[in-house]
Amino acid sequence: MPPRPESSRPAFLFDLDGTLVDSVYQHVLAWRDALAEEGIDLSVWKIHRRIGMSGGLFVRALDRELGGNLSSKQAERIQKLHAEGMRRRIDEIRPLPGARELLRRLSATKVPWAIATSGREETAGPLVAMLGVPKRIPVITRDQVPFAKPNPDLFLAAAKALRAPLRECFVVGDSVWDILAARRAGALGVGLLSGGYGKEELAEAGTYRVYEDPADLLAHLDELGVRPGGLHKGSVRAV
Amino acid sequence: MPPRPESSRPAFLFDLDGTLVDSVYQHVLAWRDALAEEGIDLSVWKIHRRIGMSGGLFVRALDRELGGNLSSKQAERIQKLHAEGMRRRIDEIRPLPGARELLRRLSATKVPWAIATSGREETAGPLVAMLGVPKRIPVITRDQVPFAKPNPDLFLAAAKALRAPLRECFVVGDSVWDILAARRAGALGVGLLSGGYGKEELAEAGTYRVYEDPADLLAHLDELGVRPGGLHKGSVRAV
Repeated sequence: MPPRPESSRPAFLFDLDGTLVDSVYQHVLAWRDALAEEGIDLSVWKIHRRIGMSGGLFVRALDRELGGNLSSKQAERIQKLHAEGMRRRIDEIRPLPGARELLRRLSATKVPWAIATSGREETAGPLVAMLGVPKRIPVITRDQVPFAKPNPDLFLAAAKALRAPLRECFVVGDSVWDILAARRAGALGVGLLSGGYGKEELAEAGTYRVYEDPADLLAHLDELGVRPGGLHKGSVRAV
Repeated sequence: MPPRPESSRPAFLFDLDGTLVDSVYQHVLAWRDALAEEGIDLSVWKIHRRIGMSGGLFVRALDRELGGNLSSKQAERIQKLHAEGMRRRIDEIRPLPGARELLRRLSATKVPWAIATSGREETAGPLVAMLGVPKRIPVITRDQVPFAKPNPDLFLAAAKALRAPLRECFVVGDSVWDILAARRAGALGVGLLSGGYGKEELAEAGTYRVYEDPADLLAHLDELGVRPGGLHKGSVRAV
């Protein structure tokens, strides 16, 4: 098969928490409360820096830090308590500034996009609903893949659902786990500060660009080579 | 007067929230709730990055961001709601790992130290009590100085209370506001990651060193030139 003569449209694979919805700090305190119920005191900033990785991996990393004394029953209970804590906090959570507008703009300009989150459908469902995501948009959750981030499975599944080549996908995320998963998937990472990481932490992980939040990304879509409405492959409008 | 022939002992001026107690995320959500009660939706990460600055400055910065529509009555009410929110959350707050041990070690080795916080006595008091700070230790709060951080007033007052020359003081803090105030005071800044800033954000602000938390600082006191027990000025023990 000869090489394709031209590149296709870029596609966007979005993380959810801290990237499209302002939910990271609720996750942090839900984990903290869950751990405290099991008698585990962990500094809050250390929990923050692990948000976005698979819940199972989070608990395993914690177990290692605690010297391997966590029973699998405890690990399961902590994850259950975290999910309950998030259900209680759902009313505090809002879409991030510009998130809905960004997604609408991508749809309007026929740029394919999907959501890929380390969260389970149970937790992610209400947040996705809050964004007004159309039914046709692929939403890949932890339940649909063998491993969550920083494994690349979620983004691989999202790109497959869009039939988009990974090398032409932008992965947009707020944590180093998104960026590591993006690189392992062969996609380009774009960081957002809205999850509370520092700019340099994301840049050092290998992002192509770092923006403040979805509104800031929307204002700079041209920097990612996204052309205004209808100018992609097959378009007849002149630039 | 001839120059002093030798340097004195280094002194430590500590920030409180995020530096000695694990309270930053509670502050973040207390501000968020206070703002929401006044109908203001601000992304949580933007609140996080302003923790540690004076409450008045915080509200003024917010006012600017919102286009100057905040009345002074609203500004006052937001600060009052934040203080109430912190009172409600006090039971969730713990000393950071190693904080009590670090302070005890400094006292045991006769290194002078003080606490200087942008918080008011009302909020800071219970946190200081939690650390078991002896009565003789100077604790400078917002109530005692004209301007809180990033103005240097708090650290100037703390150094004065210790009769320590500023250029031989280490200011230990978790936010860029501490580091800016330290530099304006002419002291050396030491950053801690325990407030949730990234390492590079603190380093870029001009810290001499960045440690994870008080436990990590305690383990590396020698890097700051703090000699083990009794080896300071006037000591006769050999190194």
